[in-house]
Amino acid sequence: MTTQIIEAKKGNITAEIEYVAQKEGIDKELLREKVAQGRVVILKNNQRSNCIPVGVGEGLTVKINANIGTSNEKSTIEEELQKVKVIEANEADVLMDLSTGKYIDETRKQIIAATHLPIGTVPMYQAGKEALDEYQDIAKLSKDKLFSDIEKQCKDGIDFITVHCGVTKFVVDQLEKQGRVTDIVSRGGSMLACWVKETGKENPLYEYYDELLEIVRDYDVTLSLGDGLRPGCTADAGDRAQVAETLVLGELVKRARDFGVQSMVEGPGHVPLNKIPAMIETIKVLTDYAPLYVLGPLVTDIAPGYDHITSAIGGTLAALHGADFLCYVTPSEHLGLPDARQVREGIIASKIAAHSADLARGNKQAIERDRLMSVARKNLDWTEQQKYAIDKCVFESLKDSKPCTMCGEYCSMKIYNKYFSEV
Amino acid sequence: MTTQIIEAKKGNITAEIEYVAQKEGIDKELLREKVAQGRVVILKNNQRSNCIPVGVGEGLTVKINANIGTSNEKSTIEEELQKVKVIEANEADVLMDLSTGKYIDETRKQIIAATHLPIGTVPMYQAGKEALDEYQDIAKLSKDKLFSDIEKQCKDGIDFITVHCGVTKFVVDQLEKQGRVTDIVSRGGSMLACWVKETGKENPLYEYYDELLEIVRDYDVTLSLGDGLRPGCTADAGDRAQVAETLVLGELVKRARDFGVQSMVEGPGHVPLNKIPAMIETIKVLTDYAPLYVLGPLVTDIAPGYDHITSAIGGTLAALHGADFLCYVTPSEHLGLPDARQVREGIIASKIAAHSADLARGNKQAIERDRLMSVARKNLDWTEQQKYAIDKCVFESLKDSKPCTMCGEYCSMKIYNKYFSEV
Repeated sequence: MTTQIIEAKKGNITAEIEYVAQKEGIDKELLREKVAQGRVVILKNNQRSNCIPVGVGEGLTVKINANIGTSNEKSTIEEELQKVKVIEANEADVLMDLSTGKYIDETRKQIIAATHLPIGTVPMYQAGKEALDEYQDIAKLSKDKLFSDIEKQCKDGIDFITVHCGVTKFVVDQLEKQGRVTDIVSRGGSMLACWVKETGKENPLYEYYDELLEIVRDYDVTLSLGDGLRPGCTADAGDRAQVAETLVLGELVKRARDFGVQSMVEGPGHVPLNKIPAMIETIKVLTDYAPLYVLGPLVTDIAPGYDHITSAIGGTLAALHGADFLCYVTPSEHLGLPDARQVREGIIASKIAAHSADLARGNKQAIERDRLMSVARKNLDWTEQQKYAIDKCVFESLKDSKPCTMCGEYCSMKIYNKYFSEV
Repeated sequence: MTTQIIEAKKGNITAEIEYVAQKEGIDKELLREKVAQGRVVILKNNQRSNCIPVGVGEGLTVKINANIGTSNEKSTIEEELQKVKVIEANEADVLMDLSTGKYIDETRKQIIAATHLPIGTVPMYQAGKEALDEYQDIAKLSKDKLFSDIEKQCKDGIDFITVHCGVTKFVVDQLEKQGRVTDIVSRGGSMLACWVKETGKENPLYEYYDELLEIVRDYDVTLSLGDGLRPGCTADAGDRAQVAETLVLGELVKRARDFGVQSMVEGPGHVPLNKIPAMIETIKVLTDYAPLYVLGPLVTDIAPGYDHITSAIGGTLAALHGADFLCYVTPSEHLGLPDARQVREGIIASKIAAHSADLARGNKQAIERDRLMSVARKNLDWTEQQKYAIDKCVFESLKDSKPCTMCGEYCSMKIYNKYFSEV
């Protein structure tokens, strides 16, 4: 079996490259070159038949991911499958199954069967859960178990996996030396840092990285190089530990590309707005312009219940400065697992951020959609407005009332149209 | 009677300057200088006894305004007084009464009596409404009626008024020559542009600006120089018409300062994210760093139902680049008048934007509040987290459930604390 990057390097335009180029409205030869360079990844496991490929990276529209998954405390497979329907209906580009509850394998298999979207996982959760459930000790996690979970998930058809390869002894040492307000807020990162601390050994995902590359290459599973030390509060943003990990991720991107494996890089996290442009541009340089997948950035820590808003603020600016892929954040972030309604709210906020960034980046389709919406608004044409709205359901609830009660007879559009329209 | 700027120019630190300096934690002599320069305004009608003054401008925290008001189609005085309670409970800094329904005078008087917050109005709505209701013709509006409405509202105790003085013949001409997607979306701006177009005369608020200054100086009512030609869609942002009006507003700021009248400038509107920094900085330069009050900016046109989010995105970046005062936008923007629940959502989104900008601007209290929240989060202390949250009610609903169901036993904080905490 081969991978998109191997074929692209050979000069071959694969069916997936052709499909993505057409969908994005860009030249397929240009896209092939970006895939060959590793600046674009195409998410699709080569063994999965029901996945429609999605391109992520330089020159493409900004994509969004929606996380779902069970925990021990909450949710069932049925509830998660319901969320998959919500995700498809609201047009997220990709989803991740982050289940840590019972029946992880069964949940994953049913989710894969239920959707055509590319799917990501964090295999470390499955391996880490077993060590914690059985021994109450993360240090009991074995490299073999972790790698066999990774291979199992690839075989099942997962399209990309988050692997916290960058949480190395050196990086953990940087973290310990400097101190932080919230230390580590990545679950996978925390598990691996504790494993490294307790065993004194190197992170197996780093030490046996070539072995990992061999596994995922067989399936063309894209590596999402996790930022285990992403800042979990605005005070920690951009510190030595974060940059040290980014340096390691940059090294791993190069090795993946040389190996014929597609890779992207995960980014922060909680970051004050003023620090976002330089941080995003620095990550891009240090990782040689690998596709950047950000978890936020949340621009303040004090808005639990509204982190879909704090992350939409940071995500839009991050995408303007080079982030390619936004992980949604729901209103229940920092509080609990989202229900289907909160999943929907998270998707809409992320779509607003992604579209607003596309617009700011000069994407012609995005600019045209805004223009058509505004022409409809000017014409007080509510049917047309519904066509271009991100959430069309908003207009359903208006159908019985007279729109728009905001200005009524003193509407600026009505007044202007009366005096200025050509006869 | 005197005004803050007249006293500040004389070197006097008024009680209001002293109060605001203490509240903001800045030096009162520095604040006096900023008031004297006109870079800070202090909102408080000198005839109003129940108003606690609020400072707006350079070096102060970012403030937010909540709009309320009746329309012919919707709402009563009682509903609006209910919204005043919501506004105070959720700690907006200022409110505006934009009523255009019946009983405008009575509504305004009751709102003034009901709150200690500074209150703004747009007197043009009252004058324009009468012309439209009685004659169905905005050209029938008389200068005398408009100016007598202004004086009446000042006497009632209003603290600042929006006046669209910049919609001059020159500016309207610029607009007509270039064309726009959504022409004019400001109600007051639209009324005055149509008046100018129909009568062929100059905008009375511009032609008789000295007379206006005399009226408001008696009450120390701050002029909020409205941007009647603010862009109403992303396609119109930053065009010749908008800049032409800003030039006029800059001239009027200088005349107000020389006259001893406090003034601020209103800004956009709908603006793509990439254009916000330069636009805000340009407005600041052209208006000699007058306090800038922005109505957004909304970073896309296609999210009706979610414009509290689109404006939080733009408002945060605008405030980082110099905007001082954010007009909230509710989820019902472009659709209808907000109810009390939507008023609350609008305030919270605006507060997130204002706080995130304070944080990004290096405000020490904002940074410390984020830090304390994150220390509490690290300690999994839900009671402490509630103390620092923007919306404390979020935690009430969690009290019966086990927080946090998001990660449960696989919480990164718990795992990290176990292996890394000092013995």
